Amino acid sequence: MSILLHDLAAANPDLRFSPYCWRTKLALKHKGLDYETVPHRFTDRAAIAKSGQSKVPVMVDDGHMVHDSWAIALYLDETYPDRPLLMPDAAARVQARFINSWCDWSVIPNTRQLAVPNVFKLIAEEDKAYFRASREKALGPLEQVGSDRAAAMKTFVQSLKPAEVTLADQAFLHGVKPGYGDFAFFGTLLWPYMVCVEDPIDRESAVGHWFERMMALHGGWVAKAPTARSP
Amino acid sequence: MSILLHDLAAANPDLRFSPYCWRTKLALKHKGLDYETVPHRFTDRAAIAKSGQSKVPVMVDDGHMVHDSWAIALYLDETYPDRPLLMPDAAARVQARFINSWCDWSVIPNTRQLAVPNVFKLIAEEDKAYFRASREKALGPLEQVGSDRAAAMKTFVQSLKPAEVTLADQAFLHGVKPGYGDFAFFGTLLWPYMVCVEDPIDRESAVGHWFERMMALHGGWVAKAPTARSP
Repeated sequence: MSILLHDLAAANPDLRFSPYCWRTKLALKHKGLDYETVPHRFTDRAAIAKSGQSKVPVMVDDGHMVHDSWAIALYLDETYPDRPLLMPDAAARVQARFINSWCDWSVIPNTRQLAVPNVFKLIAEEDKAYFRASREKALGPLEQVGSDRAAAMKTFVQSLKPAEVTLADQAFLHGVKPGYGDFAFFGTLLWPYMVCVEDPIDRESAVGHWFERMMALHGGWVAKAPTARSP
Repeated sequence: MSILLHDLAAANPDLRFSPYCWRTKLALKHKGLDYETVPHRFTDRAAIAKSGQSKVPVMVDDGHMVHDSWAIALYLDETYPDRPLLMPDAAARVQARFINSWCDWSVIPNTRQLAVPNVFKLIAEEDKAYFRASREKALGPLEQVGSDRAAAMKTFVQSLKPAEVTLADQAFLHGVKPGYGDFAFFGTLLWPYMVCVEDPIDRESAVGHWFERMMALHGGWVAKAPTARSP
């Protein structure tokens, strides 16, 4: 039985934009595990209620339900140790853990002005009331979020600086080969990449060059996913 | 001949507050190398002119002048490979590199509102005009920088979150033992720690517990350094 992944989707069920779900899909690809995704809407709580919480990714593997992208990564290495490891040793794990936390607590907050208003435009009608209420609690009126696009871009680009400096020296955040920290960061950037009307990734930057290397993994599968800019 | 370090000092020559100089002192301690420091003032350009630039730390080792804390760390491991290594392998190096960049480009910018006005009060008279002009270019009038202390603390604490999450799970950023990334982060926090009128490190947090562990290294030598709060 193949793995099932509840994967956040826009009104267009093929448009997938959750940075956390992307981390899990990148992890599954790295491990070479087959999986199917179920397009998930913010308000589809019943579908994942058994996980005991309301957020995706939620993965179902042979009857086990696992949630939270970091917990899923640990689960995959533990359950499938003979497949390529996401964190082959303690050093890779601490590096991945730090980068994962940096993405969650520094990059994502600094990407909200850019991504959130675009997410709102793309999601299904039934999700809009929930999304507005939850995001406005943190960010104020949605119509004002990201209204100064230049400022939003500046904040976003500035938050990438630790990776920009690191990737000027080395091919991947983990060194010569991508590790789970690269998947966490790439998944994070796929959020604004998928939803923005203009591609927000500067391809002339070190992060941009790395982004292209990440895009090219596994036969360029991510590039085949539809974005807000797809015809 | 022992190593000489040009180390940024306040009007009180024993009050040392540069996050970058602290990184180098922590690195020298880790390697067990003897060194002497020369109190350096922002305007002492002549003393380090031979380094071809104007910033400390500048280290002089057996006639070689090395500047920039990251370059010094690499130099120390290369020159003294039989001493405890700062970055024992490629994985430790990429981890340290990322944390070092995160400190420079995320923590330090988010600590400025807290540290800069206090630094201004503590530095020597001859440094004040230079310091004011250079900092006001980036931050606006010094008298307004950090005037909302609660907001400055919030920004600072928020910027520590990637480390807070990581250190809730593990003793050091490098795992079970401190590595150069720990020295980079500890050196960074010693900047506000040394200059603030109130100790800004929350000892109830995971970062605070780690800070105590870092303070205890090498017989608690850092705790002996005078701060702005010393009698």
